[in-house]
Amino acid sequence: MKKLALVMQTDFGPGIAVCAMKAVCHSVDPDLKIYDGTHHIRQFDVLTASDTLMYYLPYWPKETVFISVVDPGVGTKRRSCVARLTSGQYVVTPDNGALTYVKQEIGIDEVREIDERVNRLPDSQNVHIFHGRDVYSYCAARLAAAVITFEQVGPAYSVEDVVEIDFPRPTVVGDGSITGMVNHAYEHFGLLSTNIPFVWLAEIGMNYGDTVKVSISHRDKVVYDRVLPLARTFGEVAVGETLVLSTETRAVMVAINQGNFVTEHNIGYGADWKFEIRKAD
Amino acid sequence: MKKLALVMQTDFGPGIAVCAMKAVCHSVDPDLKIYDGTHHIRQFDVLTASDTLMYYLPYWPKETVFISVVDPGVGTKRRSCVARLTSGQYVVTPDNGALTYVKQEIGIDEVREIDERVNRLPDSQNVHIFHGRDVYSYCAARLAAAVITFEQVGPAYSVEDVVEIDFPRPTVVGDGSITGMVNHAYEHFGLLSTNIPFVWLAEIGMNYGDTVKVSISHRDKVVYDRVLPLARTFGEVAVGETLVLSTETRAVMVAINQGNFVTEHNIGYGADWKFEIRKAD
Amino acid sequence: MKKLALVMQTDFGPGIAVCAMKAVCHSVDPDLKIYDGTHHIRQFDVLTASDTLMYYLPYWPKETVFISVVDPGVGTKRRSCVARLTSGQYVVTPDNGALTYVKQEIGIDEVREIDERVNRLPDSQNVHIFHGRDVYSYCAARLAAAVITFEQVGPAYSVEDVVEIDFPRPTVVGDGSITGMVNHAYEHFGLLSTNIPFVWLAEIGMNYGDTVKVSISHRDKVVYDRVLPLARTFGEVAVGETLVLSTETRAVMVAINQGNFVTEHNIGYGADWKFEIRKAD
Repeated sequence: MKKLALVMQTDFGPGIAVCAMKAVCHSVDPDLKIYDGTHHIRQFDVLTASDTLMYYLPYWPKETVFISVVDPGVGTKRRSCVARLTSGQYVVTPDNGALTYVKQEIGIDEVREIDERVNRLPDSQNVHIFHGRDVYSYCAARLAAAVITFEQVGPAYSVEDVVEIDFPRPTVVGDGSITGMVNHAYEHFGLLSTNIPFVWLAEIGMNYGDTVKVSISHRDKVVYDRVLPLARTFGEVAVGETLVLSTETRAVMVAINQGNFVTEHNIGYGADWKFEIRKAD
Repeated sequence: MKKLALVMQTDFGPGIAVCAMKAVCHSVDPDLKIYDGTHHIRQFDVLTASDTLMYYLPYWPKETVFISVVDPGVGTKRRSCVARLTSGQYVVTPDNGALTYVKQEIGIDEVREIDERVNRLPDSQNVHIFHGRDVYSYCAARLAAAVITFEQVGPAYSVEDVVEIDFPRPTVVGDGSITGMVNHAYEHFGLLSTNIPFVWLAEIGMNYGDTVKVSISHRDKVVYDRVLPLARTFGEVAVGETLVLSTETRAVMVAINQGNFVTEHNIGYGADWKFEIRKAD
Repeated sequence: MKKLALVMQTDFGPGIAVCAMKAVCHSVDPDLKIYDGTHHIRQFDVLTASDTLMYYLPYWPKETVFISVVDPGVGTKRRSCVARLTSGQYVVTPDNGALTYVKQEIGIDEVREIDERVNRLPDSQNVHIFHGRDVYSYCAARLAAAVITFEQVGPAYSVEDVVEIDFPRPTVVGDGSITGMVNHAYEHFGLLSTNIPFVWLAEIGMNYGDTVKVSISHRDKVVYDRVLPLARTFGEVAVGETLVLSTETRAVMVAINQGNFVTEHNIGYGADWKFEIRKAD
């Protein structure tokens, strides 16, 4: 069997833990190709872990193994699993909601609970706080290196039982508006992205060159409400101007050309942050 | 043809975008060796992108492919190009000034505009904001993996047309001083570096052990003006003392031994920051 | 001879210097497997460099080459060396205390001073501030790629002469308490770790489910003093509650479940920070 690439994502930040995970993988097979997804997922934010996976997973080859470790319940009774997606990739993760979006948008063919009697780093049973190293990296490396087959991960369980987190779904409302959630607000460039597919705008009559009304609310309190131009890219408006455009994943985004929308308006993200867009009069 | 190393630099920070770029490269050829240059170039700062490239490019083998993505004009009318340097390396970048220093200090043998009909990620034409993934990574990976030759990048254009950004050049002034610019002020260690070659000091009589007068100004306002020792390394002065020394690229630098010159004196960098040095009386 | 993995750790932060180190290694041998340990060791903190090495080194294969560059004395008279550990790994580092823990806890079989006439990047003799690139990366890559043998690093010297830094050792005190030092306080997750082996607690009667009294002092001034539960993992206490548990390296740790103990109580780390634990009455 051929060897698969390994991609790691965690909420560990710029520390030392990731190197221990890579050590375990490299020890399983020194020829594995190991890549970093990101290690800057907001701490304990399982829904963002799910979103991050959706961001880059589709660009990786069909037989790639992803390790996702955002694991606030480490050492307690949540399942550790490997999911095989309909698109062919594998995701190794605590089954705590990190699979929400891949389950709903890509599909899970089969899911197996990791058998820790076999697929856990030897002599690590008394460590209760770093399954990212001892369980997920070890099991994922064995799968990617073809030391074990997917069937040898452990017993299958029902895909229906895979944990899904609730979130505000994008919805076309009868009055010509679309609502959804702010699913990322990235301080580095100040880009706000939503879970509203950009193509939906055209379907209800909002096109490049139009102006649109954007409203953002946090726990039902409106924190931003403006009319903005709908454009193809940053440079179509003047430096410092705000615009609505499409993210690279083809969702609705708001940005300031060479400015920072997120810090300027103090915007956060997650299920508490709702987004509404409608054609301006 | 043999496969070349790929080195990526961006202003994307510690986020998720770089992983999507690597996904595209790995999908072109899973055997490519992909390295991170840095992803912490100041946002939108094309001249620093150019300087960063000069910092490490000379240490890479002659046949290495660099991807540089600092691209405030993404999606607008600037060329996307691949330059082949006189030293043999390739640079894949928007032609927006990022080639300024390699053009002037190393030389560009030939430059070609990327033909996006061929060298753009299939099915990405409707994405206008992430050419780092869809154009630069895809094209660079194909070149590095020898899927295409340099000639197959796209049509050549005149090296004279490659965009250069204006900046204060290092100059020996008649009165025994040398002027230049602060081209980096790195908060992490607090090191200030300039574009003045360190060997110029000796040529006009400033040697290790001498004291020199340093003046730094921002938009013609002097913000620092002191007499400092000229030393070989940090440890030649006491902890907490300021010194002038040579950077690892052999330019003039100012630092505090185990302190932070940049944050203590609030020094910035770029074309607005001028640097003057002369022998102290 | 077979090629060995290279793992790099520095205090360089998220900058451009690491890429120049990798360029040197890749130029020695493009087939080397190069990994990042961490580049976020506290600046100039040699003891933490030593601790970081102990954190992940045991998980790497016996024949791995580590480069450790925390080098406040760069360019002055400290030895540059390669140590071969009793466990088989090599560490390439300035001999400034970075070997303290591996010497004491793993053991050094043999240590050699780097002969810079041979094992220094050609034409770098006039650069006095970046031995991480010019000496350590170049020498380590040659060793990992089997261009040189360990004997060809340079002359051996006495392991007894390897520099050790003094620090507060973990000690069982007669009155039923254990003292030691805070050896890390990681802001990202707010975890505090000590150098007290977790198994020592049980040896003097502190077991999971007990309550213990923790006292933390900085330069002999008590900054934290509380009774806390002793638990297996974060989720055994309510969100926001503080607990004592075992780190993944099996040392005593303090944390707040999904909170940040370090920033909430403003805890630092290093030899100035003492830690005491005893059974609560």
